Amino acid sequence: MEKYDIVIVGAGPVGLMLSTCLARWGYRIKHIDNRAEPTKTGRADGIQPRSLDLLRNLGLKPAIMAHEPARVYEVAFWDPSTAGTGITRTGTWASCPSFIDARYPFTTLLHQGLIERVFIADLHKNGLSIQRPWTIKGFKTDGKEDPEYPVEVNLENVDGVERQTVRAKYLFGGEGSRSFVREQLKIGIKHKDPIAHVWGVMDGVVKTDFPDIKMKCTIHSEHGSIMVIPRENRLVRLYIQIASSTDIDWNPRKTATEEEVQSMAKRILLPYSIEWERVEWYSVYPIGQGIAEKYTLDHRVFIGGDACHTHSPKAGQGMNTAFLDALNLAWKIHHVEGGFADRSLLHTYEPERKLVAENLLNFDAKYAALFSQRPPAAKDIAAATQAGPRNEALVEENEFIRTFKESCEFTSGYGVAYGPNPLNWSPSHPAQSSIIDPDGSRNRTGRIFINSNVTRVVDANTVHLEQEIPVNGSFRVYVFAGNPSFTGRALQDFANNLDKKSSFFSSYLRPDLNSISHHEKHNPHSQFFTFCTIFASKRGDIDIASDVPQPLARYRDHIYADDIWDYRVPDAKAASHAKMGLDQDKGGIIVVRPDGYVGIVVSLIEGSETVDALNRYFGTFCSKKLGERRAQL
Amino acid sequence: MEKYDIVIVGAGPVGLMLSTCLARWGYRIKHIDNRAEPTKTGRADGIQPRSLDLLRNLGLKPAIMAHEPARVYEVAFWDPSTAGTGITRTGTWASCPSFIDARYPFTTLLHQGLIERVFIADLHKNGLSIQRPWTIKGFKTDGKEDPEYPVEVNLENVDGVERQTVRAKYLFGGEGSRSFVREQLKIGIKHKDPIAHVWGVMDGVVKTDFPDIKMKCTIHSEHGSIMVIPRENRLVRLYIQIASSTDIDWNPRKTATEEEVQSMAKRILLPYSIEWERVEWYSVYPIGQGIAEKYTLDHRVFIGGDACHTHSPKAGQGMNTAFLDALNLAWKIHHVEGGFADRSLLHTYEPERKLVAENLLNFDAKYAALFSQRPPAAKDIAAATQAGPRNEALVEENEFIRTFKESCEFTSGYGVAYGPNPLNWSPSHPAQSSIIDPDGSRNRTGRIFINSNVTRVVDANTVHLEQEIPVNGSFRVYVFAGNPSFTGRALQDFANNLDKKSSFFSSYLRPDLNSISHHEKHNPHSQFFTFCTIFASKRGDIDIASDVPQPLARYRDHIYADDIWDYRVPDAKAASHAKMGLDQDKGGIIVVRPDGYVGIVVSLIEGSETVDALNRYFGTFCSKKLGERRAQL
Repeated sequence: MEKYDIVIVGAGPVGLMLSTCLARWGYRIKHIDNRAEPTKTGRADGIQPRSLDLLRNLGLKPAIMAHEPARVYEVAFWDPSTAGTGITRTGTWASCPSFIDARYPFTTLLHQGLIERVFIADLHKNGLSIQRPWTIKGFKTDGKEDPEYPVEVNLENVDGVERQTVRAKYLFGGEGSRSFVREQLKIGIKHKDPIAHVWGVMDGVVKTDFPDIKMKCTIHSEHGSIMVIPRENRLVRLYIQIASSTDIDWNPRKTATEEEVQSMAKRILLPYSIEWERVEWYSVYPIGQGIAEKYTLDHRVFIGGDACHTHSPKAGQGMNTAFLDALNLAWKIHHVEGGFADRSLLHTYEPERKLVAENLLNFDAKYAALFSQRPPAAKDIAAATQAGPRNEALVEENEFIRTFKESCEFTSGYGVAYGPNPLNWSPSHPAQSSIIDPDGSRNRTGRIFINSNVTRVVDANTVHLEQEIPVNGSFRVYVFAGNPSFTGRALQDFANNLDKKSSFFSSYLRPDLNSISHHEKHNPHSQFFTFCTIFASKRGDIDIASDVPQPLARYRDHIYADDIWDYRVPDAKAASHAKMGLDQDKGGIIVVRPDGYVGIVVSLIEGSETVDALNRYFGTFCSKKLGERRAQL
Repeated sequence: MEKYDIVIVGAGPVGLMLSTCLARWGYRIKHIDNRAEPTKTGRADGIQPRSLDLLRNLGLKPAIMAHEPARVYEVAFWDPSTAGTGITRTGTWASCPSFIDARYPFTTLLHQGLIERVFIADLHKNGLSIQRPWTIKGFKTDGKEDPEYPVEVNLENVDGVERQTVRAKYLFGGEGSRSFVREQLKIGIKHKDPIAHVWGVMDGVVKTDFPDIKMKCTIHSEHGSIMVIPRENRLVRLYIQIASSTDIDWNPRKTATEEEVQSMAKRILLPYSIEWERVEWYSVYPIGQGIAEKYTLDHRVFIGGDACHTHSPKAGQGMNTAFLDALNLAWKIHHVEGGFADRSLLHTYEPERKLVAENLLNFDAKYAALFSQRPPAAKDIAAATQAGPRNEALVEENEFIRTFKESCEFTSGYGVAYGPNPLNWSPSHPAQSSIIDPDGSRNRTGRIFINSNVTRVVDANTVHLEQEIPVNGSFRVYVFAGNPSFTGRALQDFANNLDKKSSFFSSYLRPDLNSISHHEKHNPHSQFFTFCTIFASKRGDIDIASDVPQPLARYRDHIYADDIWDYRVPDAKAASHAKMGLDQDKGGIIVVRPDGYVGIVVSLIEGSETVDALNRYFGTFCSKKLGERRAQL
């Protein structure tokens, strides 16, 4: 019987992200999908700013951008005009306003099939193909038969001719909202918002004099509501709400033809005209809000993506949430199977990702209700009409606009926040030390690492620090070394204590340590850690040979000068230190999880306490006892 | 007999750029190369900042960057240490310092074959393949036999079996320094610098503790000189000077083996060590400075690229100069063959491009002499050693460093300057008007259009204005419309005068004007002009329907709000207007040639004079008489 590290069911965004990560890290994967080929047209299409960061970190952004996707920088709101002559623009708002420090302050729009193909091409480079069209017929977890591969999975070709039973360490259900895996596990769906809707969605090429056809628009009119989403290749997507469970004659099977939807759109867009030159995709589907009550029962069989959460399409969050579900699970499996983390690390997947889904659904319900509401009062329209883009202070906000604004951080992906647990330090964390969470630190644990620009010492390239370590499954230890004349001793002590045999670092050295190529940039010592050292100095003043102790100096390509001016901290001499809220003389250490979220921040001080504090942090979830016995404990 | 618009000989950078442009603009091309396949390894590898702009404007930058080229931001200078213990770094300098307003302030390095393949893939999209391995055997220009296709070209497969004679409107020789076309035309080579050198060049993967192995370095030592160029895929290129015509025992056929060059490099790099893991390419070649006395004799047969200019490889200019030779010729052929320009436009190719080549050779001679000189005095070294990067004011410069600095603008490509002629307005230009070249204007005719960021009105995207019009062979007319409450009437008058039947615009309307798709963004009216309109307003305050008169409004995707803050003009309310040196209330009009160089700047005023002045400008080189008879002329 064939054995795999994981069987992944479904090759949509969640399944593909999971297999892409695990394939890169060397795992043996069986990945099936019941469709004969990837998505051809339609479906999800919005990549939020933070997801584009992630795709870039995976090296996939160029392939995505090669499709010349549409970029949404602003959202326009249209409402009935006071004069009764059709719709009028009542306001616009930045899609990702400047209060969010995003690298790419726009939503990237292209159809899901193009995105799937980017992942599939990457999987091929790692020798993995999706097995199609295959489906799952059953599974069971039985640790007695084969403790190492406890999950038995029955697979079948959709034509029913071929069957295969395989064993795996894990099974992942990423089959979408009608997940077989979820149903077999008898995991229920909780409906947060009892209201359901029937949506019509149409991708096409149009001819129109509607001025915002290349913007994301939410349009309310006397004749109904519509949402406009620009797309790659001259396409535009329209979402039209066809029915709502709040309608008197509510029928979840209500439908509408392509022509009916076009007629509705024509009426809604008056006084503007619209004609279709071509329709690429049209679909009508009922959707309600739902969230799976569990994401796993036994921490061997997991579900993620639409199998766990369904909601309206309006905020463009589905694929983005799916990506992060997969990444969250991927690195935790890697750290457990790689021998670094205790198996209980997997228990953090469900609470972290379910909280995000719940926040999404809360947001979605509020947003959806506003979207379906009657037109706002005339005075609200008049007030909103005065506001131009970026003129944020001038807008007298109605609730719709306010909800949208409050939600920008969330929808951009930069607002994802994981709660306290062993990974995300908080005052109640078992690791305690007076040097944890130093005063002024601006990185919040469980949140994304703050963006900053620095100069790479070896080649003088200006780089984005948060992107420097690829998605390699390793913890990212950023040693902000401040001013070397202040921190020289502390840095040397840090290095010496890393080298002690029971440190988090020395306890997980690669077994092939002595045969690693000098070209290895990210993981010369351990598969679980990559170190970056950032000095608050000019590049020309840094001499790696004399300023950087081993083992940090071995990460030659990860030594940086914090000497790039940043308009967000215009007076700072060391902008990256300043953005992190670290003293530019004393520095500090920021540990970032393999998925980019901050785990813990500690001061960089002389003596052993810096490494001791990190040993205590990692010791709460890793597989070995860390740190030497010390007199003061 | 087959007939072509042009026969292009040689598929190196110059030939590929020429055929890429002309193929896009619909010309029938025969393109041959005597090599069986594109460059496999080695040869040219440096793309300068301005060339990267151009490749982006052609849509080819993503394909170039997909190869993950090295990026050189700084150049390091190494000299013998005062202590006599080998080499020491005596200074570094930004490769493209911030006084140059470059989008990409770095040199991009990857081998020529990868660059060639990017062009070849683009040609395939336009249905053109390079015919290989074929060579040219002869040609003659005879207007009597076929006035439309006056050039007869004899081609032969390199195996000598197949032969073909074709007729063409033009023949282009881009076969490199030993150009058959140039030799047949008996065009001589003038040697500006009598000194010749023998260079060894080696691409390989090394193991070294030399700290600047990922930087561009010029190294002088007691044991000789070397130049280090980082490359894609862990490669590093070393240039070593093996002999010079100034040597007592000068022999242009002097050579050195791979091992000898490696031994030399090892001695030069002391006290650092270097070992080769792999050598990808190694070559020894003598090179002298030379420039062709003519680039054409009859304005039907042209030469360009290395066929016209040879020089040392150190400044990395060869391919970049070749690109601009080709682009310069391409659009001029297009405008003559398209019926817009008088045939005499082709007479501007040689003087424009020969001046650039002469400047390059002057620079190269100075730079090469310094590169070959004995080590500078100890006090110069000491002074230079104090200087860190970007610490420009602190450097007490020696001549080597000063020459390098003075030349940065030139080597970046941003310094290319074409002299006065019908295309590049000057006070002696036949077009005269008091509104030409308004006070304060910062764009210089014959120089590249200044970079700026603006917001595109239709989709609120932040865009780079200078990149908005692709390389479509059209003049780029930038209407800086200032404040619409000041310029409303002037803008309307401009539009009305464009529409008059003998204007530069109305005289060259497309013959298929009435069947153009509404999706056509750049050339809805004419193949020779694309218009952009930029308001000194916030995006939300611009209503295309009411603010922009026809025909400008038809260029919906080329209407912009000048509302993006720029750190170079921090106090300006309209940064793009300010960078151009135009009044933010009154605006102005900038005409940019199809290759990105500024032709003329005029004020935007009420009445007809703005269009009249442009009619006079275009009238000096176009094929029709422009402008209506006016009382005051």
